[in-house]
Amino acid sequence: MTTSPLALNQLETPALILDRGKLERNLARMNDHVKRLGARLRPHVKTSKSVDVVRRAVTPGTGGITVSTLKEAEQFFAAGYRDILYAVGIALNKLEHVTALRARGCDVTIILDSIDAAHAVAEKARTTGTELPALIEIDSDGHRAGVKPGDARLIEIGRKLGVNLRGVMTHAGGSYDCKSVDEICALAERERVAVVQCAHALRGAGLACSVVSVGSSPTATYAQSFDGVTEVRAGVYMFFDLFMAGIDVCAVDDIALSVLCSVIGHQQEKGWVITDAGWMALSRDRGTAAQKIDQGYGLVCDVQGNPLGDLIVSSANQEHGIIAQRGGGTRDGARYPIGTLLRILPNHACATAAQHDGYHVVDGAGMVQARWPRFSGW
Amino acid sequence: MTTSPLALNQLETPALILDRGKLERNLARMNDHVKRLGARLRPHVKTSKSVDVVRRAVTPGTGGITVSTLKEAEQFFAAGYRDILYAVGIALNKLEHVTALRARGCDVTIILDSIDAAHAVAEKARTTGTELPALIEIDSDGHRAGVKPGDARLIEIGRKLGVNLRGVMTHAGGSYDCKSVDEICALAERERVAVVQCAHALRGAGLACSVVSVGSSPTATYAQSFDGVTEVRAGVYMFFDLFMAGIDVCAVDDIALSVLCSVIGHQQEKGWVITDAGWMALSRDRGTAAQKIDQGYGLVCDVQGNPLGDLIVSSANQEHGIIAQRGGGTRDGARYPIGTLLRILPNHACATAAQHDGYHVVDGAGMVQARWPRFSGW
Repeated sequence: MTTSPLALNQLETPALILDRGKLERNLARMNDHVKRLGARLRPHVKTSKSVDVVRRAVTPGTGGITVSTLKEAEQFFAAGYRDILYAVGIALNKLEHVTALRARGCDVTIILDSIDAAHAVAEKARTTGTELPALIEIDSDGHRAGVKPGDARLIEIGRKLGVNLRGVMTHAGGSYDCKSVDEICALAERERVAVVQCAHALRGAGLACSVVSVGSSPTATYAQSFDGVTEVRAGVYMFFDLFMAGIDVCAVDDIALSVLCSVIGHQQEKGWVITDAGWMALSRDRGTAAQKIDQGYGLVCDVQGNPLGDLIVSSANQEHGIIAQRGGGTRDGARYPIGTLLRILPNHACATAAQHDGYHVVDGAGMVQARWPRFSGW
Repeated sequence: MTTSPLALNQLETPALILDRGKLERNLARMNDHVKRLGARLRPHVKTSKSVDVVRRAVTPGTGGITVSTLKEAEQFFAAGYRDILYAVGIALNKLEHVTALRARGCDVTIILDSIDAAHAVAEKARTTGTELPALIEIDSDGHRAGVKPGDARLIEIGRKLGVNLRGVMTHAGGSYDCKSVDEICALAERERVAVVQCAHALRGAGLACSVVSVGSSPTATYAQSFDGVTEVRAGVYMFFDLFMAGIDVCAVDDIALSVLCSVIGHQQEKGWVITDAGWMALSRDRGTAAQKIDQGYGLVCDVQGNPLGDLIVSSANQEHGIIAQRGGGTRDGARYPIGTLLRILPNHACATAAQHDGYHVVDGAGMVQARWPRFSGW
């Protein structure tokens, strides 16, 4: 939706702000990197849940996307995307929905990592006389789900799936815990080797494995090879956030998302500045708490988006944010009188964006040029 | 919205479940307590953001409500509520919206705690030729906003407000950090004394102060007197949650809200059961982390809602929950095969409910009798 441009001081706060220039720079950088290494990018829509955002990464009908919910599959299918990977282990109560989506022409692929799920999927496909294309999830880093490389169940799951087997996928979510770029590079290579090894094992057993899928924003950013990989999934790279900056996957200046808020009060003797962006606007995510720089509930910027030294949202209630210097109160609260507009950079873009129903898209001059809706739910 | 009854295994997961019997028991208990102490309950709608829930606490047109956003004010005004307290310090960019709401017949009252805000409100009222009724926020426990009892600015703010002054209010949010019921009782009394003292001070200066408002679910539950208080605000008591159970404001069995999820996988050697309720369904709230019993991202129950010993959601990604025993893996993951339905009790009802767009309302037999929508945003 394009509207006549608004200045930020014409919005009611809190409001979610998306810097279009930063978004486009982030999209181009990842796209170039993955293309240069010879793989195809399958962007994850779970961060933005916005067709307006994602169509800047991949034009409907020209490439695949990754989703985290069937609601995302529905919404993006309605917007013209057809090749959709639903990258969460399939829950059996969703098979009916997946089958219905496929019957309507949506080429949705599911994932699973157990013999029981493979059996249920194969049975559903058989009894409905359709195919239910599936990837086997591989555990490349021990952080969550998946079959470990070398586990004999891989072949058994592949056989159970039969004609529904399309390939393998992994998500090196462990990259979020890496302490250095070298560690991320190493994990990216481990992620690649794990799925390529599993693809070889399946093919060696006479099973089809045309898809070899890897991805996480950190490993996608720092991978040095995608040999044997057919596609790369990443999502948060579109917006980036303080967590990603904390592991050197982006600079703070790359963060395209922020929450505009108003100063509504002060507790002068404590050095607190109180705003109307609480955890409902910022999310409860405290992912930077365990990083070397704890950003509280977010890093405070002026209305143009420039960080104000080490001012952070040190505490948050539902509709109140308390701003203080990292580690304690601030002496210059009076510099931010009642009514001052501030922007808060988020710890975790996926979580913060999920608290809002759309993006106020700003240009380089800080004018709101459009409002892009987003959805939520399952 | 009433639908034909569904069993829980007919829902797609994750899904937000509201136990109607527990809701009604919680509503009745608080209502009786506040009435018995001679005050009026002004329920806070911020937890449910659902007209269907709130009209069971107060019938539209018969009493006041409390809101945390102007969106709540709009939605509840449209549903027939007129007497609305917007209990977050007013941001100046919302004064236009408040004025418009009042012009449409919504009797919205705002709050503030500074001379600057009082000046802006009085000016807005004067220039628009209307009244903008306001309460002065009092800081009864040092936890967030408000003027401290005894601070000379109280009278100055009252004078600035002039005819717009309606009274005083406080929120003893510090009650969330209490370690015992005795501490909560003491804080409830401190909350009462603080506002009553400020009301006397205003009246002593010749200013009107007809409203004396207190409230938080813990202090409202354990208050032993509301002498001098005209109204009591509380919200989370409708649903309750693990945080409230952790400070003995309710029993675990009183928690009316849960998230239905499906087992989608296992990591047997780690003792993990993996479900499709991640932080997107549960919220990122980890409020019990600092309590004596850390409930992770939520306490795991069977599909009927009975807790399964000390199984908790020990870790959560966006659409994945990892279930383990508190403190480590579980040996009996095989008891919960792929497809098993579980229910997760939330740390914080306000945060978990905010991740969903409605409630599947279940009766005592666990059948879904209705779906009540909720809204979000500002």
